[in-house]
Amino acid sequence: MNDETRPRPPAFDPDTVAESNSTSIPPPHRAANQMRYNRRLGDHAGLTNFGVVLTRIIPGGQSSFRHAHSRQDEFVYVLDGEVVLETDGGAQVLTAGMCAGFPAGTGDAHRFVNRTDRDVKLLVVGDRTAGDEISYPDMDMHAVLGADGAYKFTTKKGEPL
Amino acid sequence: MNDETRPRPPAFDPDTVAESNSTSIPPPHRAANQMRYNRRLGDHAGLTNFGVVLTRIIPGGQSSFRHAHSRQDEFVYVLDGEVVLETDGGAQVLTAGMCAGFPAGTGDAHRFVNRTDRDVKLLVVGDRTAGDEISYPDMDMHAVLGADGAYKFTTKKGEPL
Repeated sequence: MNDETRPRPPAFDPDTVAESNSTSIPPPHRAANQMRYNRRLGDHAGLTNFGVVLTRIIPGGQSSFRHAHSRQDEFVYVLDGEVVLETDGGAQVLTAGMCAGFPAGTGDAHRFVNRTDRDVKLLVVGDRTAGDEISYPDMDMHAVLGADGAYKFTTKKGEPL
Repeated sequence: MNDETRPRPPAFDPDTVAESNSTSIPPPHRAANQMRYNRRLGDHAGLTNFGVVLTRIIPGGQSSFRHAHSRQDEFVYVLDGEVVLETDGGAQVLTAGMCAGFPAGTGDAHRFVNRTDRDVKLLVVGDRTAGDEISYPDMDMHAVLGADGAYKFTTKKGEPL
């Protein structure tokens, strides 16, 4: 890409945004959540009302543990690869161009898993409504969004993790 | 696509969502805004905190008139085709895989124009923050978001359109 074709602000090439596999999920669950790499496109553009993340899941990885938000909506568009979506209704394979929406408060938990031998790319959108909680039906973990904008993770009984 | 490969809720194929070229922009400006067809993916999924729209712009069409939001963020990802993004900084061509973000309140107005002979497809995300206003620097039009969730369009002086 030369200077003529390189996008300039407010446009940009997502590949020019640094990616990270960091996660706020604490040990002992952290490692399983680090086989996905996030590029925070919305933050890069200066957006604050919602987040837009380009998530690359490597073979064997997951987007997150299966979870449901109490107050925040989530939307995922499959950009590349083949990914398994797991919800209360079971598992299904999604290919590039398919999408899924997860309204707040339904309790139906979801995750995306890469069971192929090549990377999966998802475009993930979520808002930042205050007071959100995240429930994880398959494990002893729960998260509450604090006033500082960070989630606090505990066991289901509220003990520190 | 057979039953085995057809996505099921909460996943879906965007092509199965009805598209519409309706617009709330009044005459005499309406017709110029009807060469784009929207599929409201977020609404289809039951999301309320933000909108996700798959916009198809036919040759010669635009996403909207060049505009800036006072309180709502906007994000656009180019899914297919080649599109011209016009902002205060000028025009640039974006191809599939490029993106752009438009933070609320900057006053930098934008629109996407299809100057090619084939369709353009954009994934457009915007939140629904109350009290939003839309300014249109290139024409005598202004919009204010009402308590009913609909924008009211007037001239810049506030006269009805």
